[in-house]
Amino acid sequence: MLTNKTTYRVIYGDTDNMGMAYHANYFRWFEIGRGEMLRSLGIPYKTIEEKGIFIVVSEVRCKYFAPVRYDDIVTIQTSFDPALKGGLKFDFLLFTDRSEKPCATGWTKHACVDRNGQLVRPPEFITKLLRHHDS
Amino acid sequence: MLTNKTTYRVIYGDTDNMGMAYHANYFRWFEIGRGEMLRSLGIPYKTIEEKGIFIVVSEVRCKYFAPVRYDDIVTIQTSFDPALKGGLKFDFLLFTDRSEKPCATGWTKHACVDRNGQLVRPPEFITKLLRHHDS
Amino acid sequence: MLTNKTTYRVIYGDTDNMGMAYHANYFRWFEIGRGEMLRSLGIPYKTIEEKGIFIVVSEVRCKYFAPVRYDDIVTIQTSFDPALKGGLKFDFLLFTDRSEKPCATGWTKHACVDRNGQLVRPPEFITKLLRHHDS
Amino acid sequence: MLTNKTTYRVIYGDTDNMGMAYHANYFRWFEIGRGEMLRSLGIPYKTIEEKGIFIVVSEVRCKYFAPVRYDDIVTIQTSFDPALKGGLKFDFLLFTDRSEKPCATGWTKHACVDRNGQLVRPPEFITKLLRHHDS
Repeated sequence: MLTNKTTYRVIYGDTDNMGMAYHANYFRWFEIGRGEMLRSLGIPYKTIEEKGIFIVVSEVRCKYFAPVRYDDIVTIQTSFDPALKGGLKFDFLLFTDRSEKPCATGWTKHACVDRNGQLVRPPEFITKLLRHHDS
Repeated sequence: MLTNKTTYRVIYGDTDNMGMAYHANYFRWFEIGRGEMLRSLGIPYKTIEEKGIFIVVSEVRCKYFAPVRYDDIVTIQTSFDPALKGGLKFDFLLFTDRSEKPCATGWTKHACVDRNGQLVRPPEFITKLLRHHDS
Repeated sequence: MLTNKTTYRVIYGDTDNMGMAYHANYFRWFEIGRGEMLRSLGIPYKTIEEKGIFIVVSEVRCKYFAPVRYDDIVTIQTSFDPALKGGLKFDFLLFTDRSEKPCATGWTKHACVDRNGQLVRPPEFITKLLRHHDS
Repeated sequence: MLTNKTTYRVIYGDTDNMGMAYHANYFRWFEIGRGEMLRSLGIPYKTIEEKGIFIVVSEVRCKYFAPVRYDDIVTIQTSFDPALKGGLKFDFLLFTDRSEKPCATGWTKHACVDRNGQLVRPPEFITKLLRHHDS
């Protein structure tokens, strides 16, 4: 399975009144994970857009198990889920140093659109690289 | 069913490079919806915290159907889902003026914790008001 | 002097670990203030962009006097400063219910660019309305 | 002069409708710069708070010269300005790969408060390390 690991250090601007990271910010970290996975395959998302393909977010989910706090280094473990055929799906596990269990899990689903905003199938130059690792 | 409607006008700071609102920001709007629902029942979330109860986010989901753009007024329609027993669940429909269909739907699940961070059942002064309307 | 007042209610997502609104978010509120001032003059910023003029931020400043907290209603008092000639300058006073003195003050300076990203003088259809009130 | 360099890669969530990073987000990068400078001195901000000292933001400024775009790596160059006596001041230069000139410059001023929210002079264990390098 295609997997990427990257890290992010939590700043004050990510935290909230309860002394933990605000839940919506986890989706920023998921974006970092997706971006680094695509980069590691040699197709940074920026170059995908330059080819006229825009990967939009169609659905997201996140489950929160343990708080993430200021100055924590969050490990973002991203994997590509080849099961979704008409779009792209990425799975995420988030970890902090406080536990070997994930502090959060989630996924994001995406559709591809062209320059005119028309829905298109995920192009081969993306799926070939993402699905290549399924074996 | 207990339902609340409130609105939010999208600013530049909510949008992204693709010319639409960034997907993570929808969870800020869900928070606005929850907050206004609790306020309308006479229990603003701030007063809940003052009683020593903290409502933390345990799971969220959002499905995106149509873009939300700069300066759109988003109508946030929040309803309470009484089916979840050990915690609290809120459902959301988001609308813009461009369509009668929701541009996004989602839900958030919550657990209650006390001042020591211990999980507690949702207290009666909250559930009584939220569940009162189920009939 | 041209002045506009609008309000914003602080959500959890605006706050930080110290139990107050994160300082960078004040610039979002300044954006709300500018937007509402332009709207009140009949030139919502969106329509300015539709005419091919983009108002970019060239410099900002903010001074913080007293914390802004969760659920506070922030009153954003925006005024236009006609002294800056080559660009646009807006001044801001922020208030909460806890004091008659502003909890923060600041300003933002802006340049105008056209569709090609070329710097242009602020167009008359904007300045006429903004400067009209100086008397 | 005490100086620290660190980098941040711009994500979609940082950008706006104009295809550049939203101006308020630069203050998040300034926070990253301050945090890394304190860490490099052996006093991560988290440990400062554990000693009962909170460094709050009292005033900020930023000047924007050239846009920062999606996927840019921003170099954050932070230096400590020993001239401010009653508080702490940090200066920032931001760079992208597109130019040797900074794309933005700014500073942030800070006051120190104790656990009771009382203003205190910046404690010696901080200033000794920050001012040590002035020579």
